[in-house]
Amino acid sequence: MSDRHRLSLGPIATPDRLLLGPGPSNAHPTVLEALSRMPIGHLDPLYIELMGEVQELLRYVWQTDNRLTIPMSGTGSAAMEATIANMVEPGDSVLVAIKGYFGLRLADMAGRYRAEVHTIEKPWGEAFSLEEIEAGLKQYQPKVLAVVHAETSTGVLQPMEGIGDLCQKYDCLLLLDTVTSLGAVPLKLDEWKVDLAYSCSQKGLSCPPGLGPFTMGPRAEAKLNARSGKVPNWYLDVSLLNQYWGSNRVYHHTAPVNMNFGMREALRLLAEEGIENAWARHRSNSERLWAGLESLGLELHVPLERRLPTLTTVRIPEGVDGKAFSQHLLNKHGIEVGGGLGALAGQVWRVGLMGHNSRSENVDLLLNLLEQELPAFQNQASAVPVGAAV
Amino acid sequence: MSDRHRLSLGPIATPDRLLLGPGPSNAHPTVLEALSRMPIGHLDPLYIELMGEVQELLRYVWQTDNRLTIPMSGTGSAAMEATIANMVEPGDSVLVAIKGYFGLRLADMAGRYRAEVHTIEKPWGEAFSLEEIEAGLKQYQPKVLAVVHAETSTGVLQPMEGIGDLCQKYDCLLLLDTVTSLGAVPLKLDEWKVDLAYSCSQKGLSCPPGLGPFTMGPRAEAKLNARSGKVPNWYLDVSLLNQYWGSNRVYHHTAPVNMNFGMREALRLLAEEGIENAWARHRSNSERLWAGLESLGLELHVPLERRLPTLTTVRIPEGVDGKAFSQHLLNKHGIEVGGGLGALAGQVWRVGLMGHNSRSENVDLLLNLLEQELPAFQNQASAVPVGAAV
Repeated sequence: MSDRHRLSLGPIATPDRLLLGPGPSNAHPTVLEALSRMPIGHLDPLYIELMGEVQELLRYVWQTDNRLTIPMSGTGSAAMEATIANMVEPGDSVLVAIKGYFGLRLADMAGRYRAEVHTIEKPWGEAFSLEEIEAGLKQYQPKVLAVVHAETSTGVLQPMEGIGDLCQKYDCLLLLDTVTSLGAVPLKLDEWKVDLAYSCSQKGLSCPPGLGPFTMGPRAEAKLNARSGKVPNWYLDVSLLNQYWGSNRVYHHTAPVNMNFGMREALRLLAEEGIENAWARHRSNSERLWAGLESLGLELHVPLERRLPTLTTVRIPEGVDGKAFSQHLLNKHGIEVGGGLGALAGQVWRVGLMGHNSRSENVDLLLNLLEQELPAFQNQASAVPVGAAV
Repeated sequence: MSDRHRLSLGPIATPDRLLLGPGPSNAHPTVLEALSRMPIGHLDPLYIELMGEVQELLRYVWQTDNRLTIPMSGTGSAAMEATIANMVEPGDSVLVAIKGYFGLRLADMAGRYRAEVHTIEKPWGEAFSLEEIEAGLKQYQPKVLAVVHAETSTGVLQPMEGIGDLCQKYDCLLLLDTVTSLGAVPLKLDEWKVDLAYSCSQKGLSCPPGLGPFTMGPRAEAKLNARSGKVPNWYLDVSLLNQYWGSNRVYHHTAPVNMNFGMREALRLLAEEGIENAWARHRSNSERLWAGLESLGLELHVPLERRLPTLTTVRIPEGVDGKAFSQHLLNKHGIEVGGGLGALAGQVWRVGLMGHNSRSENVDLLLNLLEQELPAFQNQASAVPVGAAV
């Protein structure tokens, strides 16, 4: 045998970071405990009971009665693709409302499933009005409208009132990205008439990344059942997955049982806290952060009325090397803060306060570090000295 | 808010099972410790270092130099689909050698990616000869031949000598399912001229399910690079994944970091043991099991020369309710043993000795239980009394 690739390593020794970027966020300690339990079989009666608990609690945090509510066995991006793969048939008109990176991704995915993809676009930092959405629906007559509720790339929260009604008026399914809102930002799928949604495990749910909550309502189920051919993606085919998650319990793939142990604990904690309390906690800690940032003279990229309580985009002050400062936070203090993505690369930091991390002590810790250590990263040329504007 | 789905649950309380079925197998205790570490960011320099370690050690256990060797962020079935999704272009002739359930699945997947699917078939319990493979290659002139190395549904090990040479002779890529062989059964991808392979985390690697090791050699890379359109699967698109796993480190999806903590530890343990020692350990514990089963008068479904050292199919004796006995093992002793799948449903038990579970004490424990408790499940009509045939 060849020993060419036989590395000789010591045991893993990753540090405890405070993850205040766009995700992953820190997992709750009891979620990590659950994750480390000995696996059981994916057809074990005890596991099947646990699957039911996870489904039911996902319905609670999403505020939906959808029967087809399951965690996909991949990350949030897999759950995103599951919505597209199951819904789109070749030639279907799909309208994507793009106001950041994840809208672009939805359009890319829809094209791969041979949709006739149409887009409406807004600058990165803005949201869509009802009028803009209606104009798009009228013009493109789509079978599916894809909207990002919480744009992780910009920190914008899309107002949802009225969009579901418009979709029903134009006989179109509403697909909603709730990756950075589930468990943290008010979300009422059934009230909003959302037909398909997906999320991730590593943000508002305080679980490590690896599962992608997915839900599909009756109108979407009807479109799935009326497909003329197989879903062109075996792993994410909901008609097959439904036979495992439904009462038949037909083997599909070996479930990631430990990740689901963690998911059950994460959802249990949210149910214990109460979803409205979790929403309020995220709101109040973000308001504390926003006030603190502004009192340091820092500028927020998104106006208050459409600002996301889970992810705040902070404009990097002129004269500051944003990347050098975030590397300093990571290396010196073990704190991760995100950089800008796409159109906002180099322009903003992205600060996440999600799930278990949405706590006032984390806000205060970061504000103190910004106040004390950011000025050293500011060159002489800067017009707005940080920490001096109060 | 509606509290309709707000379950009030206690903390998770799954028992420690001994998993001697087709997988998941028990995880190694230090793998579970690694899994429960606090997540770090998927672009953290320390995580990027860990990614490199995982890639290098996967090359070691697979015995390949393939640059494109990564764990897919899903279970083994996702990695299976990744090989098909990236390789197949519409209209490509794909030949699947079917001798069990997982061959059928490969054919299903290839059809979804619009291959012109051809099959050669053998009864469940047999393997293909070189002549049968060559006849198929000659007849169908496929671009890809898909073969299952270790059929988990039947317990058959496919002999690999000569298949790679045949594929090169017929200008065809060789795609190999190594789900139930990686880390446990001799496997030499480069020597065997395998172009694409995939596996899972929860068998020979002693890690929980949730990751799908994937590898692609230079001939497969060339076919990927020559594609005329995008890979029709965003999540599993290796040309995108390569930008994250390669030197560019472009964000694709948020990696399942904790699962990769576990994977690194699982591979580290295998490198410490030495892959040849792990192969020999699996072989010797299975031989101990086979001898013991036969001395109890039980019949093995697969003849010795093509029997898989990780998964043994044991014929359920006439007059025994196989399901009742495996439920008894689970409920009374916390031991999971698998039932038959597909053509072998109701006919066999499937006994796995994989990874950390391949130990003589597990073999002896199961043999003792079979000897002492199986007779009570045998009705009077039985022709071959178990435990009496020695």
